[in-house]
Amino acid sequence: MKKKNKKVNAAILIIGNEILSGRTQDKNVAFISNWLNIKCGISVNEVRIIPDNENTIVKNIKLLSKSFNYVFTTGGIGPTHDDITAKSISKAFKVKYEYHNEAYGILEKYYGKKKFNDGRKKMAKMPNGAKLIYNPSSAAPGFMIKNVFSLPGVPSILNSMIENCKQYLIKGLRVYSRTINLYTVESNISKQLGLIQKKYKKFVDIGSYPFFRLGKIGVAIVTRSNSISKLKKVNSDLLKLVKLKNIKILKI
Amino acid sequence: MKKKNKKVNAAILIIGNEILSGRTQDKNVAFISNWLNIKCGISVNEVRIIPDNENTIVKNIKLLSKSFNYVFTTGGIGPTHDDITAKSISKAFKVKYEYHNEAYGILEKYYGKKKFNDGRKKMAKMPNGAKLIYNPSSAAPGFMIKNVFSLPGVPSILNSMIENCKQYLIKGLRVYSRTINLYTVESNISKQLGLIQKKYKKFVDIGSYPFFRLGKIGVAIVTRSNSISKLKKVNSDLLKLVKLKNIKILKI
Repeated sequence: MKKKNKKVNAAILIIGNEILSGRTQDKNVAFISNWLNIKCGISVNEVRIIPDNENTIVKNIKLLSKSFNYVFTTGGIGPTHDDITAKSISKAFKVKYEYHNEAYGILEKYYGKKKFNDGRKKMAKMPNGAKLIYNPSSAAPGFMIKNVFSLPGVPSILNSMIENCKQYLIKGLRVYSRTINLYTVESNISKQLGLIQKKYKKFVDIGSYPFFRLGKIGVAIVTRSNSISKLKKVNSDLLKLVKLKNIKILKI
Repeated sequence: MKKKNKKVNAAILIIGNEILSGRTQDKNVAFISNWLNIKCGISVNEVRIIPDNENTIVKNIKLLSKSFNYVFTTGGIGPTHDDITAKSISKAFKVKYEYHNEAYGILEKYYGKKKFNDGRKKMAKMPNGAKLIYNPSSAAPGFMIKNVFSLPGVPSILNSMIENCKQYLIKGLRVYSRTINLYTVESNISKQLGLIQKKYKKFVDIGSYPFFRLGKIGVAIVTRSNSISKLKKVNSDLLKLVKLKNIKILKI
């Protein structure tokens, strides 16, 4: 994995009526985003969830691949009629949608020649020039073309494949993060928190998130920065505020 | 709730760095989408997750409010510096960002005059002309302006408020849905499924989703339509296919 000494970003494009309709709870956004953040120093700056519709996929692939360093798609690369991601990405990049020789070989070997039917063969069709993302759990590979990575929608399969994206990615500046969990309410500290954010505006992002745990109300203060020393400084300011206000910290 | 005899759609705009970074698992998309579908006959056609950034929020509100019948935002309406949704929506619609008298009154009563500090007062600031969405769990109301509904990010609070959006919504054609869970793999039925989808193309959407349950692999076939009779017809075709292929149905 090559390293780049600056910020690298990505977008996630979740393709699937089942997520949009609320039938299925998406779990891929949090998983991919955490992995990109922690393992690759890549920040996810936008997520879109769209239906299994060719025009919509084409439009979004064109736009997101221009706007972000990387795009990760999930869903729509299986054997059924509603799996149209590979075909749509081919259209977006104006390349042929055709059998990928290596993918064809992998799938033929996995299913055996006799059981390698049209549905299964479809999973070997990809945009011309795509590189494979190997799939250790169910054989059918994902693919990468230009700056777009296509992964399946089933979380357990996606999770097993994600490390195989690494070889194609350029590592960005790592984002470090600290969390302090406080037994207080946001409006008790919002003014001072705003002043601390102002002071470190350029270097640290401070987020404030209410939580309910063990019947008690609290606030998680999350700080993020590319610089550990800046992160330490802002956290020392936060601890002074906590002491001043006599707030209890929840250790977890 | 007024009723409209045609399709009504919506977009969801999730505002929050904590969702984008993968720190927090979003639960609001599935909840809002299910509620809109089942209770209001409104289909969610797009979801976006974006950071707490004014320009990004303004741009997305402008675009989504033009493209869809309704837009639901979540997050960014609390008391801290990173809560900028109400201000950004005001900017998008070029209206003043100011105290809403009724919201001010509700919050002042809830906290008591002495404890009604600046952070808490901030939650009464809204776009001029906004209507309130009452909050039975923690007082601070959401708001509705033009076709945009702003709700909080904390799922339990959002869930308690959603029914209060109904009065402002026009009900669309209900989407009916049936699911058949099959003990088979997608590629065993993908060809025939494609043919059935082709036959009912205009009236019914057929989705195919692999699942793993109790150590077994299966496929959920989900059919959706505005017409119950069409749904019955497609499901009868599906059951013929299941019988032909000698596939076991999982009853749940």
